[in-house]
Amino acid sequence: MEFRKKILENGLSIIGELNDSAKSAAVGFFVKTGSRDETKQINGVSHFLEHMLFKGTDKLSAIEVSKAFDRTGAQFNAFTSEEVTVFYAAVLPEYLEEITNLWIELMRPALRDEDFNIEKNVIKEEIAMYKDQPEFDAADKCRALHFDSHPCGNSVLGSVESIDNLSAEQMREYFNRRYAPDNMAVVCVGNFEWEKICNIVQDGCGGWQSKGAGRITEDFEGSKKKENTEKPNINREHICLMSYAVPAQDQRRFAAHLLAAIIGDSAGSRFFWELVDKALAETAAMQFGAMDGTGVLFTQVQCSSENKIKVMDVINRIFQELGEKGVSEDELQKAKNKILSALVIKNEVPMGRLADVGFNWMYLGEYRTTADDVEAIKSVTVQQVNSLAKQLSPGEYTQFSIGPAKTK
Amino acid sequence: MEFRKKILENGLSIIGELNDSAKSAAVGFFVKTGSRDETKQINGVSHFLEHMLFKGTDKLSAIEVSKAFDRTGAQFNAFTSEEVTVFYAAVLPEYLEEITNLWIELMRPALRDEDFNIEKNVIKEEIAMYKDQPEFDAADKCRALHFDSHPCGNSVLGSVESIDNLSAEQMREYFNRRYAPDNMAVVCVGNFEWEKICNIVQDGCGGWQSKGAGRITEDFEGSKKKENTEKPNINREHICLMSYAVPAQDQRRFAAHLLAAIIGDSAGSRFFWELVDKALAETAAMQFGAMDGTGVLFTQVQCSSENKIKVMDVINRIFQELGEKGVSEDELQKAKNKILSALVIKNEVPMGRLADVGFNWMYLGEYRTTADDVEAIKSVTVQQVNSLAKQLSPGEYTQFSIGPAKTK
Repeated sequence: MEFRKKILENGLSIIGELNDSAKSAAVGFFVKTGSRDETKQINGVSHFLEHMLFKGTDKLSAIEVSKAFDRTGAQFNAFTSEEVTVFYAAVLPEYLEEITNLWIELMRPALRDEDFNIEKNVIKEEIAMYKDQPEFDAADKCRALHFDSHPCGNSVLGSVESIDNLSAEQMREYFNRRYAPDNMAVVCVGNFEWEKICNIVQDGCGGWQSKGAGRITEDFEGSKKKENTEKPNINREHICLMSYAVPAQDQRRFAAHLLAAIIGDSAGSRFFWELVDKALAETAAMQFGAMDGTGVLFTQVQCSSENKIKVMDVINRIFQELGEKGVSEDELQKAKNKILSALVIKNEVPMGRLADVGFNWMYLGEYRTTADDVEAIKSVTVQQVNSLAKQLSPGEYTQFSIGPAKTK
Repeated sequence: MEFRKKILENGLSIIGELNDSAKSAAVGFFVKTGSRDETKQINGVSHFLEHMLFKGTDKLSAIEVSKAFDRTGAQFNAFTSEEVTVFYAAVLPEYLEEITNLWIELMRPALRDEDFNIEKNVIKEEIAMYKDQPEFDAADKCRALHFDSHPCGNSVLGSVESIDNLSAEQMREYFNRRYAPDNMAVVCVGNFEWEKICNIVQDGCGGWQSKGAGRITEDFEGSKKKENTEKPNINREHICLMSYAVPAQDQRRFAAHLLAAIIGDSAGSRFFWELVDKALAETAAMQFGAMDGTGVLFTQVQCSSENKIKVMDVINRIFQELGEKGVSEDELQKAKNKILSALVIKNEVPMGRLADVGFNWMYLGEYRTTADDVEAIKSVTVQQVNSLAKQLSPGEYTQFSIGPAKTK
């Protein structure tokens, strides 16, 4: 395993983790832009842009793009979050250069008015589809409620209204500002030739102009507001809780990850034994979300309406006992085993490793081996977890619930 | 990469692929039993048994089983098909012995009447849930129609009726007959010590009695029957086609896999360009299913009722043109690229590799490296694919469709 990096004059980072014994290679374009970088007026533009990148360039039609991916046999996809837009592919080593060249072309899309107008309907259908899923809708609204006026509360998909009002010109302006080379990294992992990839990226992207795009990264405590809504034709309560946690840049992130697993891993956690195993709730899971300059502990619960009060009592008691008695050595050890095995297994293959290499670079400007992260997790102590639990007070949460409309 | 095998005196196979550079290890118990080994009276018992293995042993309660998995940090699961029941886990190397011991214990379950009666309701809920998904229901009924009286037509889940009528005693009898050591293989892949695993398996399983369990493996052409049903409250047509293909033991399986990808891969195939890209259908995909002694080409389509006739015309034309003109060199090359990259990427990690090592052993009694399979796929010629297409005649299919009830 060998780490390499090169920063082009226009600020584009090229990051490589070379592994001669890998049987495949993966490449990702990490663009540091997402819904938190949007204003209310253009909310949803980052995710919309992700779709538009597959619609072609001045030279390639959408069909030609599809055929070009096809030729390489690539496993490829893209996603947009609050913070990043990532385009990635895994291929046999002999196709890495071809697929990298293809992504480079797509990173300078045509953004045609005609394609924009057609894709608007696809985006609005996607919004409608997710609105139909109460667990997704509740999560989106809980995030908005928690972050209040902070931009991390912006929805990734946007609203039907914001998408309706969005113009192709606004999208192009946003694109020019945010898809600048100094706001992107090209990350390669696996079996490939570093010099060749550097030359390809230099040739293809060297002429792009830097823009000095920034981001508001103010930390935010969370609103701690509580809201409930009702909806006809649903059967279960969908309860989301969100509370403050440490940022992706904070050394305590490893302890936060372990704390969330002890409280709310999908199996074997306190939530699992007290809620799911006792059949009070079908789902009760907590995750730590490390973000740029801030972070959240995020809990999702599904239960029947009649169990809702009991479920919230149990959750509040779990948070209270956590503050009073902390976690045990045995709980920490089990959480470490689960997180370490998931981490090592995911990072064993280039496609999985790509995400960690890319995110560590985006958030920390730093390269970390899997072994570095394994070591950091192993060295977390019960005292550190308990001291963090006291600092974070997960019992002081924002709450948003969607439940069945009451029959009168 | 080093291959090892050992057959215990009672017939239990231990199969190992050692890879010192892997960061994890995976172990699987492959039991050669599934719905095709059931009679109508006990249909669903294999899948039911898979659930029961997690309910504990004479020494361990279900909660203790859950806690035992938890301690190892394992990523684990099980599945049942028409042909096999597989229990598997991936762990950090230092936990492979512990998890192997745990699986060995679970392979001799208590099968308590009390647990059996409670789990019956879980199974019936699972059947109800799948019945609600027309694409699954259509697939299940198409398989039954295609295989007619051949046991490969048995449903994996069984019916509410067959599960209701099943007794714990019938399950125990089936278990004793089918979970015999000469009908199982223990497969280990990744970073582990061969001798240690062999000793653990010998100590834990050496006393199990062989039973000489067999299986009906008659080949079967398929019924080629056509059936349609209507259902209220659904919006789309769910069309399934099934036709004869070569068995898992047949050298032509590689050509069959490529043929299915050329006709019906989810992207870039003939179905994709003629049906999905033209917005005649949302889904139109063909897969090759290699089975023990037989095989199928299986197509699933979803479209609107108004497009159904047009969609079937296009599909029949695609099959006719395939028979007349065959496939092109370019199509074959693209299909090879896709299948090879998927194969190599999946097999790069022990958890993925486990399946191929296990299935090659079950079906062929043979160890094949990933490189062997890559070579076999690369060497398939256009002539071989076209000759196979003529032999298989995918246009002569069994058809089962579920569509919206017609308004009168």
